[in-house]
Amino acid sequence: MDALTKMTRIEIVIPGRDAPAVRELITSAGATGYTAVSGVSGIRHHGPHSGALLFNEYDTLTMLITVLPPDKAPELIGAMRQLLEGGPGVMFVADTFVSRPEYFA
Amino acid sequence: MDALTKMTRIEIVIPGRDAPAVRELITSAGATGYTAVSGVSGIRHHGPHSGALLFNEYDTLTMLITVLPPDKAPELIGAMRQLLEGGPGVMFVADTFVSRPEYFA
Amino acid sequence: MDALTKMTRIEIVIPGRDAPAVRELITSAGATGYTAVSGVSGIRHHGPHSGALLFNEYDTLTMLITVLPPDKAPELIGAMRQLLEGGPGVMFVADTFVSRPEYFA
Repeated sequence: MDALTKMTRIEIVIPGRDAPAVRELITSAGATGYTAVSGVSGIRHHGPHSGALLFNEYDTLTMLITVLPPDKAPELIGAMRQLLEGGPGVMFVADTFVSRPEYFA
Repeated sequence: MDALTKMTRIEIVIPGRDAPAVRELITSAGATGYTAVSGVSGIRHHGPHSGALLFNEYDTLTMLITVLPPDKAPELIGAMRQLLEGGPGVMFVADTFVSRPEYFA
Repeated sequence: MDALTKMTRIEIVIPGRDAPAVRELITSAGATGYTAVSGVSGIRHHGPHSGALLFNEYDTLTMLITVLPPDKAPELIGAMRQLLEGGPGVMFVADTFVSRPEYFA
């Protein structure tokens, strides 16, 4: 990963109705942008913990991907966790590397 | 990655006709859900090993993403490897972090 | 990640008009294939560094994902960095693991 800078990539899959609230969180956490993927579907199976909080195959979902500096990520992760609480959305956090870190700061 | 739990993210790109079999594997491996992205295309070039087993630009592909606990992942990875054997599908495995691990267990 | 081989996953989000040039770079860097996701939109906010180089919500974007051996990745990353220079495209680089490394070499 020579000459690349470590960033945090946050991927969120949510019902389309929740997308505006998530986009607003992303912006207010200081991320400089995001990518939205439409044409997404998903399913959550019943399980001991997920209760009735399920996607079903007929929901229209949105996948939002944002990349931000590691020091700005915890705030967004904390806010997203609260927003997702009790709902069917999922959030995946991973390291990623970029060539132009100033573009995301 | 404070307060987040490490999981395994498995991303699979396959011809649409193979998607039902892959979804069934995902479910029987104990994953609690998956995300499907449609509107996906891809190409595999001829190479010394890939022989005639190619996507072409006209195939309709599906991308399936599932996240499960690291201890459940090897079973699914092994089964997927067998299913993909001899075909054009690809599987990418990476670490990811989630805030609600009980949602995926 | 037993029995899996580490590879480099490069994910690029670009305006649709730039997709052919990026696909050509991917191919000439020796990648054996790629996945293209359509139905993608995105936004870049004004910031101190990004100036006027923005996506806007009306651009049609393409997400291209390619996976190649770590020793082939720097060449593609360098060439992509030059191609993206001064434009709105973004590139994310991460480790990923595959079960059939010969498929990507």
